[in-house]
Amino acid sequence: MTETRFLHPPEPVLYAPIIEAAVREDLNHGDITTAVTIPPGQQAGAVIVAKEPCVAAGLFVAMHTFRLMDPQIRFANTAPEGSSLEPGDILLELSGDCAAILIAERTALNFLQRMCGTATMTARFVQEVSGTACRIVDTRKTTPGLRILEKYAVRAGGGFNHRFDLSDGILIKDNHIAACGSVSEAVKRARKLAPHTLKIEVEVTSASELNEAIEAGADAALLDNMDCGQLAEAVKFARGRRADMLLEASGSVTLQNVRDIAETGVDIISSGALTHSAPAVDLSLRMK
Amino acid sequence: MTETRFLHPPEPVLYAPIIEAAVREDLNHGDITTAVTIPPGQQAGAVIVAKEPCVAAGLFVAMHTFRLMDPQIRFANTAPEGSSLEPGDILLELSGDCAAILIAERTALNFLQRMCGTATMTARFVQEVSGTACRIVDTRKTTPGLRILEKYAVRAGGGFNHRFDLSDGILIKDNHIAACGSVSEAVKRARKLAPHTLKIEVEVTSASELNEAIEAGADAALLDNMDCGQLAEAVKFARGRRADMLLEASGSVTLQNVRDIAETGVDIISSGALTHSAPAVDLSLRMK
Amino acid sequence: MTETRFLHPPEPVLYAPIIEAAVREDLNHGDITTAVTIPPGQQAGAVIVAKEPCVAAGLFVAMHTFRLMDPQIRFANTAPEGSSLEPGDILLELSGDCAAILIAERTALNFLQRMCGTATMTARFVQEVSGTACRIVDTRKTTPGLRILEKYAVRAGGGFNHRFDLSDGILIKDNHIAACGSVSEAVKRARKLAPHTLKIEVEVTSASELNEAIEAGADAALLDNMDCGQLAEAVKFARGRRADMLLEASGSVTLQNVRDIAETGVDIISSGALTHSAPAVDLSLRMK
Amino acid sequence: MTETRFLHPPEPVLYAPIIEAAVREDLNHGDITTAVTIPPGQQAGAVIVAKEPCVAAGLFVAMHTFRLMDPQIRFANTAPEGSSLEPGDILLELSGDCAAILIAERTALNFLQRMCGTATMTARFVQEVSGTACRIVDTRKTTPGLRILEKYAVRAGGGFNHRFDLSDGILIKDNHIAACGSVSEAVKRARKLAPHTLKIEVEVTSASELNEAIEAGADAALLDNMDCGQLAEAVKFARGRRADMLLEASGSVTLQNVRDIAETGVDIISSGALTHSAPAVDLSLRMK
Amino acid sequence: MTETRFLHPPEPVLYAPIIEAAVREDLNHGDITTAVTIPPGQQAGAVIVAKEPCVAAGLFVAMHTFRLMDPQIRFANTAPEGSSLEPGDILLELSGDCAAILIAERTALNFLQRMCGTATMTARFVQEVSGTACRIVDTRKTTPGLRILEKYAVRAGGGFNHRFDLSDGILIKDNHIAACGSVSEAVKRARKLAPHTLKIEVEVTSASELNEAIEAGADAALLDNMDCGQLAEAVKFARGRRADMLLEASGSVTLQNVRDIAETGVDIISSGALTHSAPAVDLSLRMK
Amino acid sequence: MTETRFLHPPEPVLYAPIIEAAVREDLNHGDITTAVTIPPGQQAGAVIVAKEPCVAAGLFVAMHTFRLMDPQIRFANTAPEGSSLEPGDILLELSGDCAAILIAERTALNFLQRMCGTATMTARFVQEVSGTACRIVDTRKTTPGLRILEKYAVRAGGGFNHRFDLSDGILIKDNHIAACGSVSEAVKRARKLAPHTLKIEVEVTSASELNEAIEAGADAALLDNMDCGQLAEAVKFARGRRADMLLEASGSVTLQNVRDIAETGVDIISSGALTHSAPAVDLSLRMK
Repeated sequence: MTETRFLHPPEPVLYAPIIEAAVREDLNHGDITTAVTIPPGQQAGAVIVAKEPCVAAGLFVAMHTFRLMDPQIRFANTAPEGSSLEPGDILLELSGDCAAILIAERTALNFLQRMCGTATMTARFVQEVSGTACRIVDTRKTTPGLRILEKYAVRAGGGFNHRFDLSDGILIKDNHIAACGSVSEAVKRARKLAPHTLKIEVEVTSASELNEAIEAGADAALLDNMDCGQLAEAVKFARGRRADMLLEASGSVTLQNVRDIAETGVDIISSGALTHSAPAVDLSLRMK
Repeated sequence: MTETRFLHPPEPVLYAPIIEAAVREDLNHGDITTAVTIPPGQQAGAVIVAKEPCVAAGLFVAMHTFRLMDPQIRFANTAPEGSSLEPGDILLELSGDCAAILIAERTALNFLQRMCGTATMTARFVQEVSGTACRIVDTRKTTPGLRILEKYAVRAGGGFNHRFDLSDGILIKDNHIAACGSVSEAVKRARKLAPHTLKIEVEVTSASELNEAIEAGADAALLDNMDCGQLAEAVKFARGRRADMLLEASGSVTLQNVRDIAETGVDIISSGALTHSAPAVDLSLRMK
Repeated sequence: MTETRFLHPPEPVLYAPIIEAAVREDLNHGDITTAVTIPPGQQAGAVIVAKEPCVAAGLFVAMHTFRLMDPQIRFANTAPEGSSLEPGDILLELSGDCAAILIAERTALNFLQRMCGTATMTARFVQEVSGTACRIVDTRKTTPGLRILEKYAVRAGGGFNHRFDLSDGILIKDNHIAACGSVSEAVKRARKLAPHTLKIEVEVTSASELNEAIEAGADAALLDNMDCGQLAEAVKFARGRRADMLLEASGSVTLQNVRDIAETGVDIISSGALTHSAPAVDLSLRMK
Repeated sequence: MTETRFLHPPEPVLYAPIIEAAVREDLNHGDITTAVTIPPGQQAGAVIVAKEPCVAAGLFVAMHTFRLMDPQIRFANTAPEGSSLEPGDILLELSGDCAAILIAERTALNFLQRMCGTATMTARFVQEVSGTACRIVDTRKTTPGLRILEKYAVRAGGGFNHRFDLSDGILIKDNHIAACGSVSEAVKRARKLAPHTLKIEVEVTSASELNEAIEAGADAALLDNMDCGQLAEAVKFARGRRADMLLEASGSVTLQNVRDIAETGVDIISSGALTHSAPAVDLSLRMK
Repeated sequence: MTETRFLHPPEPVLYAPIIEAAVREDLNHGDITTAVTIPPGQQAGAVIVAKEPCVAAGLFVAMHTFRLMDPQIRFANTAPEGSSLEPGDILLELSGDCAAILIAERTALNFLQRMCGTATMTARFVQEVSGTACRIVDTRKTTPGLRILEKYAVRAGGGFNHRFDLSDGILIKDNHIAACGSVSEAVKRARKLAPHTLKIEVEVTSASELNEAIEAGADAALLDNMDCGQLAEAVKFARGRRADMLLEASGSVTLQNVRDIAETGVDIISSGALTHSAPAVDLSLRMK
Repeated sequence: MTETRFLHPPEPVLYAPIIEAAVREDLNHGDITTAVTIPPGQQAGAVIVAKEPCVAAGLFVAMHTFRLMDPQIRFANTAPEGSSLEPGDILLELSGDCAAILIAERTALNFLQRMCGTATMTARFVQEVSGTACRIVDTRKTTPGLRILEKYAVRAGGGFNHRFDLSDGILIKDNHIAACGSVSEAVKRARKLAPHTLKIEVEVTSASELNEAIEAGADAALLDNMDCGQLAEAVKFARGRRADMLLEASGSVTLQNVRDIAETGVDIISSGALTHSAPAVDLSLRMK
């Protein structure tokens, strides 16, 4: 589902420290079980297999994890990032030092099952809205420390990223508005001071706030927790006032209602669930 | 449910770096929205409220996060760790620098909603088996980088921890057995070489493997993916051979079947779901 | 000159590691000169004084540096950030442990003289264009490792920040265009794939490229190395096609020509010199 | 100009962390512009060219930066460290992953233009004093975090390094003298307590302080802000008292007066401007 | 002496940071002596030789150290880990960049002479008790920062490791007992709350405390500072009560008395001296 | 014995990371023994007592360690750094959180017993040479990672530091001489290229090499492994040639022969044993 897009994985300089920290967390001062049962130098082959339908994401993370333990490890049959897999399909074959594979196994799978989980859920949402112009995007409700991997998994599943962090987007939320006094005042301040590279998006909860946002010159509005009827009305109202206003629906998005939401004409649907509630995909590493 | 236990939170020297990394991940080079809408020095009060029933865990993490942004911030009405909360109940009140609260909000909630989620699910399992001698324990299927917080949340929910990492327990699993050739050989090697401080646990999938484990001198057996009938038989068999053999049931444990499993007489029930599938608790930070 | 703006300094969690690294770089395993000449515990007072006209920026960095060496140090008469100083004016008074002051002196001044230098040069450019609607902005030609401090200094001097890094703005430059084949193709790709929170800016070197940019839907154009005549024409052309197109002039901007450039009607003037060529301000720490 | 010297670059273990930090600073969570315009896997060639006369320094830093993004990148025609270049001369040719080159470009150039700048300015000073026995040396007025690279650039330009940090030289300055009470007392203390591996240098501002320094047994004197007449007299006075006394001139050194200063007979001329005021060399990376 | 055991060295991901830190500690901003005396590029060969009888341990650490300075360095004749060497025997031959070898020499030897020292002393204790069933084990009295290397050296010498740290073993010591009130109460608490993967060991100083430990269900007892008569009695008493009770002798163990202690029938003899008092082995690196 | 010297402890910014790393090494994911036996919040008092005569060094390190676990801990009766203690004397009293004290105990003592050990051995050497002009100095044969603390301990014991690392002193050793061809050539190169802040010391093994060193202009000579007769001759020879030549004796220095060596007239006696072979002082922490 990503055939017409560029799917750049994150740079190793960004994810390598995350993997090293995870390996150290699990390895601690050494794998005692392996140390007392596996002779140094024993070789082994293994395969990582999907046990349920899923979308592949993060194989490069798994491979990096194994390589940390055995720089000579060999890989084969790596599933393409973003590809759809059925139960029994192989994600990765590996062969190398037996102890190294046993030590890295859990960490590699802990990453992989989460990244595939997010990619899989995202792909389902994207599939639901196919044929519309609506984008599925994530939020900042990610797992602390894993954002770069989880946001990548959203892209691998065919979604887009909302802002990554507090630096690369302006999103004026309820608490900012409360502190400023009104949508108008908040947007006015942002218009005056924002860097010219960023659009200004503001959360609105009613037609009148949407009007304020448009009047004050916001570039985008997050329509918070509106039902499809309210969304459709908001789209109609906004398009009539400013043709290129971006409209984002957020809150209580499910696989069941996402198509209906998309058909209201909003440009973007965001869902925290892509990262905080995607169930881990059931994967298994089997020694050959 | 933790009244008779000691609930030590992890030491700050262990979790402080995790929080700092999470803050840096979300803050990046600065919170542009807050910078352009909130005057420096503005003060504010806020409250974190539960929006569904839950068990509190990780308030110290949330407070540490806010303090990183405003060392002068004041807290009140902190919910006791491990206490049960109803919708609308307050987890934490805070007052201090408005920009600081807005900047720390998402990171603090990202931690808190996960830790409360794990504590809540654990407490439900513990409640189900109350009155039996059976312990609910976690696994190593934790989120990379957050193990120390997630394993604490299991304890806050009334559960116990299985080994933390590859260093502090011997658990001979299927792949070790495959590499050694048999349960007997694997346990024999471990008996010869293991540190005297650790018990030796081995995964078994059948009565004959359980017998091998007992013969070879294992201290504990993980009974993998057995149904209640098989478990009951295994317990009976093992107890007849070695009274103090520890028996752990693992695989496909749910709130629905956990009581039945406990009543087979196993000592321990482990569940990866406590950490990899506990849904995030719905929490909200509201400015006052 | 910052009276109507919010001047938030960077968060300590962001700049503290930079200062610690700088202190370790200069201190190494200890200050031998001080160790052999100054008795432990001797107290001293000192003052940091401007030796030329300047704009104050970075006092919080200097104070943080001294506090690392003596947590009990006391400060007085701190010059407000962004204030204009004359020769002989005091930036900071301090009193505390004599050895600590001597050890921290050079590192504190190395930071301060650079930050004041950038703020001072920025203020001069801002002063030149006062009365126009034109913003003075920086670039990514900053000192490796010090970007957060240098970009802050630009704001302290009354300027605005262009994008901080490769993540928080889309700026399609000559080499991207070369790799894509044309301005049109590059902007078209970006329109399709860019996050909705970011505007799309593209570097153009001629009227025909500017036309391509507008046709393809860019939000902003960087007019590279054009003279004032070309700039005026470009502004006129662009405004006629798209009223809210942002226009940035870049290249060979000096204090002598910046007013003329601003008067062509461009929205933004960017200058790498603010960060890579601002002369260090001459400051002096004198023991009292 | 370095033909008779050993020009060892700093060890990678020392500069690699500086480069990684700089890459992370600029890359942040990813290069959005490149991600949306450049297909993964596209290859490219490029050349870094001097746009003004300069001395090459730091090519190994630039190459390390590009290699971080593409370990397979190939280099050719690397200019020798310390060599003199004319406008249009090539510093480095590179070919490899197009996205990697675009991502690393700014960071590589930010380092290179500064290092070449310092080497170029140093070479001009060294050229001015050629034929005398006088050394041109730097100071500790370096950019926080970049000292090891800037001090190397001084050597690449034919200069020598003064002490690197507070640990590897004894330089008793005005504020130490103030705290001790006199030049005599300060030097006396240092003579008693200094490690035997370090010489003792003391800043003096007058003939009588120079006399104190010699009497107290200093090994070197920094003659602070003296004019050429005063310097010549100081040299004559000191040589008459102690033949091997090292004499360093410091303060207000320019390309215009450095020859005159050298001809007074001082051994060393130090200049902070080599590192804090060397203009960045104008370099350009062009895709082929 | 390790022929029937698996001797896994620690994973590079665990020891690499220790070596890098040590290299930076010794190298600081560069090796001035080498920089001024050795031409860049000069090649050299060298050999590391034992100057006294010893057991080899840590060659991989030495090689990692040299490789940090010269990735192309070549090694030959590496002594097997755990092998016994006589004066004049070669531990390692190396050839590569002359400056790199000189820079890494001291750090490599500082590690190697300590690791060989611990392995050598351990091997002597192990030799003394040969033929008994008694294990020689270490303690937590290791050098801060080097535990993973020192505990490995104990294994290389034929010993076993006691717990690595506070996480992977339960050892109730005098101060815990004091805080709990009695051996009984302390063990009772541990039995109730300890993870099921760990045995419970308790320090006892008398027959009555040993009785308490057995009654309360401890798995092991550390017999603190008892003489051989007391040890023999304790063994007899404990074996009569619980056949599989582990008994550890600790305190004032020497090469002179270790055989007598082992012959009392204790399972384990622990000695802090293996890590805190093993004399460094005299090694020498000679250029060829 | 340090009454007439300045004894500056290292700056916390330098040693804090060493202590944190050591605490993490020993604590790992938590102190299981304490967690299962000690109630949260229990308070305790304790005392650290010397069990043999020693010189106190490093109390600030111990206090920093305890404070990491309990920021509210209180200290009393801290022994002065460098003071002499008898068996039973108190080094430190502390009162605070019981669990915190138990957790920090081993790490604090591991540091303290080594630092006191080095200070004690140094003080004995210094005492032996009292009345002569000879300095006792250390070497670079320190424990990797602990140099700053061990070199401080040497000063606390009344000794002086040789160079700290490869950056702050020039010491031309046997292998440099081998690579250069001769003492003359090596010193000649160093004279030409060395920074003016450092003296040039060269290792010599014979009278003819000493002569070469003097002729070539070395500032100091390390007389390697000479007996007292050879040393006395070397002193006489050197003083006749150059009055201020520094002479250092090194190799096989013991408490038995150090006075004789000092009386040969050498200026400096260096000993690696101060840091690599000082026995740990026997200390004990007792709960009150």
